[in-house]
Amino acid sequence: MTTGVWLIGARGSVAVTSMVGATALRAGLAEPLGCVTELPELASEAVPGLGDLVFGGHDISDITLEKKVEDLVAAGVLPARPAAAVADKLAALERELRPVPSAATQLETARLIAEDIDDFRRRRGLVRVVVVNVSSTEPAVVPHPAHGVLADLEDALSSPGAILPPSSLYAYAALVAGCSYVDFTPSTGTRLPALRELASSAGLPYAGHDGKTGETLVKSVLAPMFAMRNLRVRTWAGTNLLGGGDGANLADPAANAAKAGSKQRVLAETLGYQPQGSSHIEYVDDIGDFKTAWDLITFSGFLGTRMRMEFSWHGCDSALAAPLVLDLARLTAAAHAAGRSGPLTELAFFFKDPIGEVPHDLPGQWAALVAFVRGLDGAA
Amino acid sequence: MTTGVWLIGARGSVAVTSMVGATALRAGLAEPLGCVTELPELASEAVPGLGDLVFGGHDISDITLEKKVEDLVAAGVLPARPAAAVADKLAALERELRPVPSAATQLETARLIAEDIDDFRRRRGLVRVVVVNVSSTEPAVVPHPAHGVLADLEDALSSPGAILPPSSLYAYAALVAGCSYVDFTPSTGTRLPALRELASSAGLPYAGHDGKTGETLVKSVLAPMFAMRNLRVRTWAGTNLLGGGDGANLADPAANAAKAGSKQRVLAETLGYQPQGSSHIEYVDDIGDFKTAWDLITFSGFLGTRMRMEFSWHGCDSALAAPLVLDLARLTAAAHAAGRSGPLTELAFFFKDPIGEVPHDLPGQWAALVAFVRGLDGAA
Amino acid sequence: MTTGVWLIGARGSVAVTSMVGATALRAGLAEPLGCVTELPELASEAVPGLGDLVFGGHDISDITLEKKVEDLVAAGVLPARPAAAVADKLAALERELRPVPSAATQLETARLIAEDIDDFRRRRGLVRVVVVNVSSTEPAVVPHPAHGVLADLEDALSSPGAILPPSSLYAYAALVAGCSYVDFTPSTGTRLPALRELASSAGLPYAGHDGKTGETLVKSVLAPMFAMRNLRVRTWAGTNLLGGGDGANLADPAANAAKAGSKQRVLAETLGYQPQGSSHIEYVDDIGDFKTAWDLITFSGFLGTRMRMEFSWHGCDSALAAPLVLDLARLTAAAHAAGRSGPLTELAFFFKDPIGEVPHDLPGQWAALVAFVRGLDGAA
Amino acid sequence: MTTGVWLIGARGSVAVTSMVGATALRAGLAEPLGCVTELPELASEAVPGLGDLVFGGHDISDITLEKKVEDLVAAGVLPARPAAAVADKLAALERELRPVPSAATQLETARLIAEDIDDFRRRRGLVRVVVVNVSSTEPAVVPHPAHGVLADLEDALSSPGAILPPSSLYAYAALVAGCSYVDFTPSTGTRLPALRELASSAGLPYAGHDGKTGETLVKSVLAPMFAMRNLRVRTWAGTNLLGGGDGANLADPAANAAKAGSKQRVLAETLGYQPQGSSHIEYVDDIGDFKTAWDLITFSGFLGTRMRMEFSWHGCDSALAAPLVLDLARLTAAAHAAGRSGPLTELAFFFKDPIGEVPHDLPGQWAALVAFVRGLDGAA
Ligand SMILES: NC(=O)c1ccc[n+]([C@@H]2O[C@H](COP(=O)([O-])OP(=O)(O)OC[C@H]3O[C@@H](n4cnc5c(N)ncnc54)[C@H](O)[C@@H]3O)[C@@H](O)[C@H]2O)c1
Ligand SMILES: NC(=O)c1ccc[n+]([C@@H]2O[C@H](COP(=O)([O-])OP(=O)(O)OC[C@H]3O[C@@H](n4cnc5c(N)ncnc54)[C@H](O)[C@@H]3O)[C@@H](O)[C@H]2O)c1
Ligand SMILES: NC(=O)c1ccc[n+]([C@@H]2O[C@H](COP(=O)([O-])OP(=O)(O)OC[C@H]3O[C@@H](n4cnc5c(N)ncnc54)[C@H](O)[C@@H]3O)[C@@H](O)[C@H]2O)c1
Ligand SMILES: NC(=O)c1ccc[n+]([C@@H]2O[C@H](COP(=O)([O-])OP(=O)(O)OC[C@H]3O[C@@H](n4cnc5c(N)ncnc54)[C@H](O)[C@@H]3O)[C@@H](O)[C@H]2O)c1
Ligand code: NA
Ligand code: NA
Repeated sequence: MTTGVWLIGARGSVAVTSMVGATALRAGLAEPLGCVTELPELASEAVPGLGDLVFGGHDISDITLEKKVEDLVAAGVLPARPAAAVADKLAALERELRPVPSAATQLETARLIAEDIDDFRRRRGLVRVVVVNVSSTEPAVVPHPAHGVLADLEDALSSPGAILPPSSLYAYAALVAGCSYVDFTPSTGTRLPALRELASSAGLPYAGHDGKTGETLVKSVLAPMFAMRNLRVRTWAGTNLLGGGDGANLADPAANAAKAGSKQRVLAETLGYQPQGSSHIEYVDDIGDFKTAWDLITFSGFLGTRMRMEFSWHGCDSALAAPLVLDLARLTAAAHAAGRSGPLTELAFFFKDPIGEVPHDLPGQWAALVAFVRGLDGAA
Repeated sequence: MTTGVWLIGARGSVAVTSMVGATALRAGLAEPLGCVTELPELASEAVPGLGDLVFGGHDISDITLEKKVEDLVAAGVLPARPAAAVADKLAALERELRPVPSAATQLETARLIAEDIDDFRRRRGLVRVVVVNVSSTEPAVVPHPAHGVLADLEDALSSPGAILPPSSLYAYAALVAGCSYVDFTPSTGTRLPALRELASSAGLPYAGHDGKTGETLVKSVLAPMFAMRNLRVRTWAGTNLLGGGDGANLADPAANAAKAGSKQRVLAETLGYQPQGSSHIEYVDDIGDFKTAWDLITFSGFLGTRMRMEFSWHGCDSALAAPLVLDLARLTAAAHAAGRSGPLTELAFFFKDPIGEVPHDLPGQWAALVAFVRGLDGAA
Repeated sequence: MTTGVWLIGARGSVAVTSMVGATALRAGLAEPLGCVTELPELASEAVPGLGDLVFGGHDISDITLEKKVEDLVAAGVLPARPAAAVADKLAALERELRPVPSAATQLETARLIAEDIDDFRRRRGLVRVVVVNVSSTEPAVVPHPAHGVLADLEDALSSPGAILPPSSLYAYAALVAGCSYVDFTPSTGTRLPALRELASSAGLPYAGHDGKTGETLVKSVLAPMFAMRNLRVRTWAGTNLLGGGDGANLADPAANAAKAGSKQRVLAETLGYQPQGSSHIEYVDDIGDFKTAWDLITFSGFLGTRMRMEFSWHGCDSALAAPLVLDLARLTAAAHAAGRSGPLTELAFFFKDPIGEVPHDLPGQWAALVAFVRGLDGAA
Repeated sequence: MTTGVWLIGARGSVAVTSMVGATALRAGLAEPLGCVTELPELASEAVPGLGDLVFGGHDISDITLEKKVEDLVAAGVLPARPAAAVADKLAALERELRPVPSAATQLETARLIAEDIDDFRRRRGLVRVVVVNVSSTEPAVVPHPAHGVLADLEDALSSPGAILPPSSLYAYAALVAGCSYVDFTPSTGTRLPALRELASSAGLPYAGHDGKTGETLVKSVLAPMFAMRNLRVRTWAGTNLLGGGDGANLADPAANAAKAGSKQRVLAETLGYQPQGSSHIEYVDDIGDFKTAWDLITFSGFLGTRMRMEFSWHGCDSALAAPLVLDLARLTAAAHAAGRSGPLTELAFFFKDPIGEVPHDLPGQWAALVAFVRGLDGAA
């Protein structure tokens, strides 16, 4: 059941950590920590194994994998030992990466993107490819009338000009190439009616948005705790200090706004009201991939007594994200194989800003995920 | 459905906050924050209302309720306004409190305790009384051969000497008086085979042990988060700084050990292994009822990358405990009415050290609690 | 040595806490905690006593002192007992407060302000009045050519239009009225060449800027610690969550910028370089006067080993500021009496953004303060 | 001015980090971060340079330096690059280490220790050797009548039996060998009248006790801040989680007590009173050399308003200690050269539990240190 994983942003931190990690795990160099799909509760014949994954992808950067791995080791993201052990596999991975095509119209660019993916599938003899967007976060999309209906969209794409943001153009190309699509970023991706129409008519599944790796993960268990205990959260304010490629990108207020939005939604959804306070993101180059988040929560209990909680989270963003990218690729491929199409709402467990009317508490999302995998077994 | 609540330790912080709070809530002076049974998911005709509760109890102390309320207001545990508003109700509450009886043998003492409870029931015309232990934490029990079988126990109790620790003598007396029993403390209470035999033969329900109000509550949602994400917790070390009556008592290493034990169990039960580190309790008079707990968690993720989280919790212990005491009294009375006997394992949600083979993650305990209340509806 | 203290912003939190606090201390209702001038090292015959202070002031608000005290008690800023004990003194204080005068030109307005102050001095038979600005923080000043020279300034003030921001107009009026001036806010105040000229020609002392009460206070001892140990601070990033009147005002980005600037200066001055990271201020209504600040510091030691420190500070801003307002009034009055004129650089201890080339480490500022007081003794 | 540094506990973490670090710095492989004596304020011709130090020492362990360096690199204490760069220097260092001699009486053992040191001095042609104790912390000393007078002590040492704890026996041997002595540990060392007598009659300087590297360092700047602001500290409670060799040793309650004592003294000395709360040490193997300390400080300000501060410190103990060991060796050697004898109280800056009536605030200690170095210049 060899499965292709085509990474948009394939030379970035998350992508490279995913590829190197999968290679190291396949070689038995480490335990599959962080890989949710490896938990006994989710074991399933219907889901491709870690060793069944084959990687390729697009990136606008031309940094070599060798250099990127060196940087990730120096930054403490990739441990030196497994990185060294897979050094001889980098050349083979490198051969599957492609520069981003560019043409006179977006329709033509999409065709070239789809062609790259299709080549990969044929060359490697793959039944199925999942396209995963792990490229830089985009600013919020500029609405366009052609976003509503597929026919209008394809019409508009065939003239010069940028109708779609990159994440959506990749999504369009992936679906055209018959691939499922996962959006690990807060970018627009499939979130346009015309693209939903395309996925549905092509019978393809997709998942998103924005991998849940740090502060939001903690929120998705703490906020339900306050709710279950009938404690009123008055303020929930957070600060995220992060560096690295993604950090630099988020320093741009437009991209930042998209991300900060995703991060507070969990509170309103699990508490039933929006407490005061916001989630602040600050770029600090020195912090690199080891994000530090600090949150203050003030709450009221019996007879209004005022109490508070603080937490700080010091997590390595790429090390938290990479195993989820592997999980998502495996689960989405399995859903595709099982004939699922449209949004995979049962994968909300993995996302800050999940699609659909789904639970936002982590345990509820976990229950949905377990049921989803059991359903795949049944379908097999 | 007027229900009696008989509090052991009725002049302590938790007990007085419970009684004053219930009185203030009944008078509509505050929202029922912290009261789990008031959440819409747990609404049930089978459960007595907050306004249906009537209080009495035993205490070895002779501090007046008036003085105790004054202290709790000064300490910021009870807000001044509701406390003032119920001042004229304290005399009536005071009339229902009794000194702890004492006699030549424990059997005779138990008979006198039961008599006090029975008087209360008859005087107030109550169908049912729940006895709730909120007295000072005891040292670990000294094993005695007569603890095993009820007949042996009653035999031993009829000679002079202390066969049972106070919490268990109260439990015995409660059951003899036909009352259900809740242990909100880490003390022994019903945890002796002879007492389980008595509860079962008398057809009475009981619940325990040790109300879950602070650090352990947080652990019961964070530890499952690490488990669901396949992150390996290496260290979980905690410090609890607390004052107040209970704090002073816990400064005694013997009582302390019982409590610290309850506090780490949740980790082994939810993670499947015991991480390094312990839970340290320190008495600091100045801190009073506003406990500060700090926990450090170190964990490993993808390829072994090391990460960490810290939290600090600044909660008012009595304000967190009191609404749970009311919840437990209401739910246990409802179970009694529905004919339940033996341990109420579905109430694990409320306890640090729950009885039986039950979930230790808060969401699992919540699901069990919801099902329990729905079951009561069915039985009604 | 009865000394007048004329407060700009006299109905604000800091002002009212200062007046009520001084009244309570004079009545012996509390120890003089937070009052630096009460420390034995600063005892001096040359400095007026706490009991020698007499208050008046301007405010644009017409909230009564009674209502403001009630609010401050409800918010936990003023303890209920001393507040109640001085309730009968509020009417007398109220009689000394004045609305802000307004006239056709700023020169005329200044004349009316000076007249109010002069009336106060004569009515109360005061030798000396210190004007202290504790009004809302202003946006950064708009430069104007007339700010450079006193003659030009007075010329420009005599035409309609706003040449000076309020803080500077008050400073001008204070100096014209023969009063010393303290700027407890980050506003412009005396920071214009024309006003420095006036102070010098009038032989009057002044001090500023921006009372140092929380995060910056901690920085002024921690940053020197890193410097003395030759540890390289890489990042120093902070978040300040605050509500209250001042918080609402700082939510305005323009005012905010002035404040955040003051807050980082201490690092460059004590470390000799500017680490990465900024100081972020967020308004959270619920937090009120009890500001929570959190700072992350990352640093490198021997052979470059990377380490970190975090702190969180939960302080009541007005309770920290009020005693410093009293200290500054007493010390500035004493300097005035001793014939000092121009900037009182020795009062840097009290300010986030002190005037002049002065030490920015707290111990260095303390040494300068002690020497200053000893110098006053000598002058006496 | 080549100076010998003889390390007791030469195969331990602090010792090996010191030796490897000095070697790397001499080779220009890193900046001298953490080295106080390299600050411009302390530059002096009278103090030997980092490159003038030559190392030897005793240890009871026979772990090789190569293995120990490997462990320290794996633990993140020594960065990989400088460690690799000095690998070829380890054999030379190894040749200067000696097993701990043992004989029938402690007097004879001391003679053999002194002989090892003397051999080192002659072999390497050194004018002067400083003996620095960085071996495991001992339990509190058992008093013995012979500790009072040198003649009695030497008499008692000549019979079989353990009259002196190891740290004091090393101190005795060092002084007998004409060497100055630094105690970087909380052990007894020179703290016996008979040894003070010996140092004074031999005209030798000594310094101690217990290197100040983490929580106590922070206390020595924060506590004076509260004092200078007349804020009353009510509680100061701390938890130290640490692993590593020293951590394992401190898990022993007897050694632990000595250390926890040193850690709270700074508060009483700088505040003038002892706040509530204690300093708790817990051994957590996983934490290794990267200690995490958390402190809670509650304090009262104006009119008694209650406030709080928390900090957490995540420092690498050996990386903080090693540069101080180098500083102390250089400064003590310079004092010896300048003819100083007896306790070097001006080195209090470096110690948790400094000898003599000295300032306990870091800035006061810094001033004393600067004056001390300037005095050496004068003496030269
Ligand atoms: N790491 C986490 O915890 C986490 C969590 C949730 C979401 N994300 C998202 O994952 C994404 C990747 O994060 P990262 O840390 O790897 O960032 P990164 O900056 O290291 O990598 C992004 C890569 O995308 C490439 N790229 C940019 N525009 C592109 C385009 N138009 N086409 C193809 N490639 C393009 C860049 O050249 C770069 O190599 C970000 O959007 C981030 O917000 C990460
Ligand atoms: N507050 C919480 O968050 C919390 C959480 C879990 C468990 N608990 C447990 O609840 C209990 C009560 O806590 P608290 O803060 O109210 O303590 P407290 O010290 O204020 O009150 C205890 C009361 O019990 C009384 N008492 C002691 N021995 C007695 C006896 N033999 N018979 C009758 N009365 C006796 C005391 O006189 C006192 O009035 C403690 O055991 C505590 O461990 C509290
Ligand atoms: N509290 C602290 O710790 C602290 C520290 C440093 C500086 N400060 C500064 O002190 C000032 C006061 O803080 P606060 O918390 O009392 O604020 P506040 O909002 O409670 O009070 C400010 C008062 O100034 C009045 N005011 C506004 N404009 C005025 C004008 N033109 N003339 C006269 N009065 C005017 C307002 O009506 C209000 O009553 C702020 O500028 C703040 O930045 C406070
Ligand atoms: N690292 C710090 O921040 C710091 C701060 C203050 C004090 N200290 C003290 O420094 C000492 C060393 O700390 P470490 O982390 O290097 O510990 P460590 O356990 O790594 O090293 C101690 C060494 O001493 C050796 N030793 C034990 N007994 C001996 C004896 N009788 N004679 C000779 N050698 C002996 C051990 O074999 C070991 O090699 C400890 O006492 C510690 O308390 C360390
Ligand atoms: Na931390
Ligand atoms: Na806190």
